Amino acid sequence: MSLIRTRPEEKGADIPLRIYSNPICPYAQRARLIAAFKGVKHEIINVHLKEKPQWYLDDINPYGLVPTIEHNGHLIRESLVTFEYIDEVFGDSHSWPTDPYKKAQAKLLLSDFGDRFTPNYYKYYRNAQDENTPKLLQKYFKSVEELIAQNGGPFIFGKNVSAIDLLIWPWFERLPALFTHAPELKTLYSVDSVPLLIKWDAAMRETDAVKSTITPAERMTAFLANALSNGGKHDYSLLNIDGLKIYTKETE
Amino acid sequence: MSLIRTRPEEKGADIPLRIYSNPICPYAQRARLIAAFKGVKHEIINVHLKEKPQWYLDDINPYGLVPTIEHNGHLIRESLVTFEYIDEVFGDSHSWPTDPYKKAQAKLLLSDFGDRFTPNYYKYYRNAQDENTPKLLQKYFKSVEELIAQNGGPFIFGKNVSAIDLLIWPWFERLPALFTHAPELKTLYSVDSVPLLIKWDAAMRETDAVKSTITPAERMTAFLANALSNGGKHDYSLLNIDGLKIYTKETE
Repeated sequence: MSLIRTRPEEKGADIPLRIYSNPICPYAQRARLIAAFKGVKHEIINVHLKEKPQWYLDDINPYGLVPTIEHNGHLIRESLVTFEYIDEVFGDSHSWPTDPYKKAQAKLLLSDFGDRFTPNYYKYYRNAQDENTPKLLQKYFKSVEELIAQNGGPFIFGKNVSAIDLLIWPWFERLPALFTHAPELKTLYSVDSVPLLIKWDAAMRETDAVKSTITPAERMTAFLANALSNGGKHDYSLLNIDGLKIYTKETE
Repeated sequence: MSLIRTRPEEKGADIPLRIYSNPICPYAQRARLIAAFKGVKHEIINVHLKEKPQWYLDDINPYGLVPTIEHNGHLIRESLVTFEYIDEVFGDSHSWPTDPYKKAQAKLLLSDFGDRFTPNYYKYYRNAQDENTPKLLQKYFKSVEELIAQNGGPFIFGKNVSAIDLLIWPWFERLPALFTHAPELKTLYSVDSVPLLIKWDAAMRETDAVKSTITPAERMTAFLANALSNGGKHDYSLLNIDGLKIYTKETE
């Protein structure tokens, strides 16, 4: 069976939202998570991120990245922008804490996530970690732990899932794969070190939103092993299993 | 006169907001701009960013960066987080466009600003620009120009200043200083190339918020020249003029 796909059909009018995604991409998963969390009926178009379809670059996203969302004839890119758009447009209320100070704490956790967590996380994909990398990841774990403690858990702001849980979750889903390569991290992310965070992880895995967007752990592990043997470069061809429909560049 | 300052007094109860800032820092200016724009009475504590006071690191911001804001006993850091907090807490409505798609466009312009504009802008401070740098800056200018055109100007979303105007303005204030070092950029930021953006620039300089936070162009030029002669490293000591009160590390 050929997995080369031409451009998808126009989005059907009965499906309000289309998400251009890739199952392995944590940024794209943010958009899928908020759509699932808010119960928005949506269609997923999986784009091959190495062999990018020309129509995707030309008409959907000039940078070739995912996610991009399509709603009411508008195309919107960037994971946080698509997340906040879906969150704001669908449902009765958005998923950030309503208290402005708590909301600022959530946004700060997100800002530190981008500035301090993900750069250190991705160092492992490039085998570029140094002695400070585990400490910096642990420092971030501890800051989430502290906020969960303040708010009583099991989620970061208490009894209910809110935006920040969903926005950082995709990278936590991928930690077990990282531990197969970097077992020294496992003690930093343990019941002894960050008990509330470990409970948060378990509680997240029980939510419908997470269940509906999760990728099998074996596939994550294979993906990471492949990236590591390839100098940190991702090879999305290993997604082409299970008959998953992935749009890639046309060979004709 | 010694410019060494010990820790400032507790914030007075009659002043709702304190902003830890530095006149040369565009990120800190974001917080000062939104406070001025919303008419929030505030106090500014200028922190020396090279010779950081120990009390600032210990009790206000562990990263030693500005802005940090103090409100209702809470300390909040990170320029965008402080901006959105001030915007949300003070006044009757926030300054983002109310239409969700326009808001997404504004957030996208901000996302591209951080990912694509500022990294190229700062390459000039380090003399690290290459042949693509001016093109990438121009591409960003054009994307702002396009949005102003869509919305009729003079501001990015039409007749009124909104969040995105204020969030990107500080770097545009500093462009004339950059042009003294990189005159080749001047043709890219001209009436011939981006006429609506040049009008936007002029309109911004007429707003009260900008007028109240602006730094004299000569000081900006001196600051850039100093950074350039110092391998991109900022020397905030040149701020110690005009009797400006700057808190720095104690020498005793």
